[in-house]
Formats: sequence, C-alpha cells, structure tokens
Amino acid sequence: MFLRIDHVGIACHDLEAKIAFFESTFGMTVVSREVNEEQGVREAMLHVADGPNGSSYIQLLEPLSPDSPVGKFLAKRGEGVHHVAFGVPDVAEAMGELGGKGIRLLDERPRHGSMGSSIAFLHPKDVGGMLTELVQAPPPRT
Amino acid sequence: MFLRIDHVGIACHDLEAKIAFFESTFGMTVVSREVNEEQGVREAMLHVADGPNGSSYIQLLEPLSPDSPVGKFLAKRGEGVHHVAFGVPDVAEAMGELGGKGIRLLDERPRHGSMGSSIAFLHPKDVGGMLTELVQAPPPRT
Repeated sequence: MFLRIDHVGIACHDLEAKIAFFESTFGMTVVSREVNEEQGVREAMLHVADGPNGSSYIQLLEPLSPDSPVGKFLAKRGEGVHHVAFGVPDVAEAMGELGGKGIRLLDERPRHGSMGSSIAFLHPKDVGGMLTELVQAPPPRT
Repeated sequence: MFLRIDHVGIACHDLEAKIAFFESTFGMTVVSREVNEEQGVREAMLHVADGPNGSSYIQLLEPLSPDSPVGKFLAKRGEGVHHVAFGVPDVAEAMGELGGKGIRLLDERPRHGSMGSSIAFLHPKDVGGMLTELVQAPPPRT
C-alpha cells in the first residue's frame, strides 16, 4: 500500500526560524512554502531524497492560531514530530481499504495537501499512537 | 547531508502484536528482528521503499525494561513516534560536522544500529523537539 515515507511533519512556533535552522544545519533546501487555511497552518517542505516512487521531505508546520490542531498540539506537547505521511497510489482507494479494516479516518474524503497532493488522515489511536497521513502525489504536469 | 529518511521509530508495548497489525493493515513486511541490549529494546524493521540512496523502514520498538529509554518514553508519552532517522554517507563525519555547529550529540562515538548499521543520536532539543538519529548503512556484503 505504501510507496514511500512522503514526509515527517514537525510542529514549530516560528516557521522561518526553523527553516533557517534546517537549511544551515543539515544543508536542506525549501521546495515549497504554503498557507493552508483549512488546516490552519503555514508550512514549508524541505527536500530530503528522490526515489522511484516519489520524493521524501521534512514538513515544517507553524499554526495560524492557538486553537488550530497544530496550535493545540504545540500547547500540549511542545515542538516535535506531529505526523508521518506515506505515499499511496490512490488516496480514495486507500481510505476505502483501511476504513474497511476498521481504521478510523479523520477525513470523509480526500482534501488538499502540500504541493497539489490529495491527502487524508488516519486516527492516531488506530495506528500505534502515530498521526498518519496518506498522500497521493498530483498528476505530473503536461 | 541526508541521503534518505531511513526510518521512523515507533515505541510500542507489544512488538509482535504491532508487527501483526502493520502487516495485516498496510501489507508491510518485516525484514529484520533484533534485540539491542545496549539500547534496551526488542525491535523490528518493516520495509516501506527502496531508493537510489538506500531503503526506508518503519522501526517498531518494545522496551526490554520499564527503566530503559523507550520504557520511560512509553510511561510518559504512550505509544507513538519515538525518533526519526536519516541516512548519511559517514556517521562519524556527520557527527563531527554537526557537533561543530553546536548540535549536542547523545553519543560520543558511533554505535551499533539495526541491520549492521552505525548510528548516533542528536539531542531532540537541538533539532526542533525531534529525537534524531543518523544512520550509516553497513558496507555491502561481498
């Protein structure tokens, strides 16, 4: 089902400061900056590796408000790993298969993720305490 | 510096139960089971993807005792993501470079990791709250 570890999402208080840290410390490169109002985050994708089934990233997430999901996470847990995302060929198909196995989905249908992807979240209590995201990459540009 | 997301390490109470869950839910395959006395864990590596610079895995970790680092993590945080590991070409070289940049190392020298790798951990407070592992893959068998 999983094609790759698509990204590890890290919650932080100050996106630009954290980007500068990851760039200068690990030599990583930002490939995308976005604001996702629906999810209440300002985010950046930093490239780690390319593979035959897509690329892997670190995703940095700064909440747009304290009462957003990432804002509440930061207040409760502090900065750190927020979720782990796996690439799938078809997110709707994966949701159907996993829902049929009794995994609770946090989304009824796929929604917009980073860089044009379609995503859905699985309930962390059903996946070993790990908030898990499914990511379907956008179709290649023609 | 980073070649790949090598693995995401997940702390759990019951290794065999969690392996069975990941296999049946996501169709993942266990490629290695080990006991690492030094780190106080029983662990398994589940394959996610192969890439030009190495493979990616989910690592499941069960503590050998409650007073081990993973045992204490479970008592405090419950099951979930324990650390994130990145592949590097040379772990000693990466330690030197990161130490020179002021990142605190939890290991003075590389130690034994999963499947013959050499590893070292970085202080989570210096890497955005994420316990970070450096992994140098073993030399290929001849």
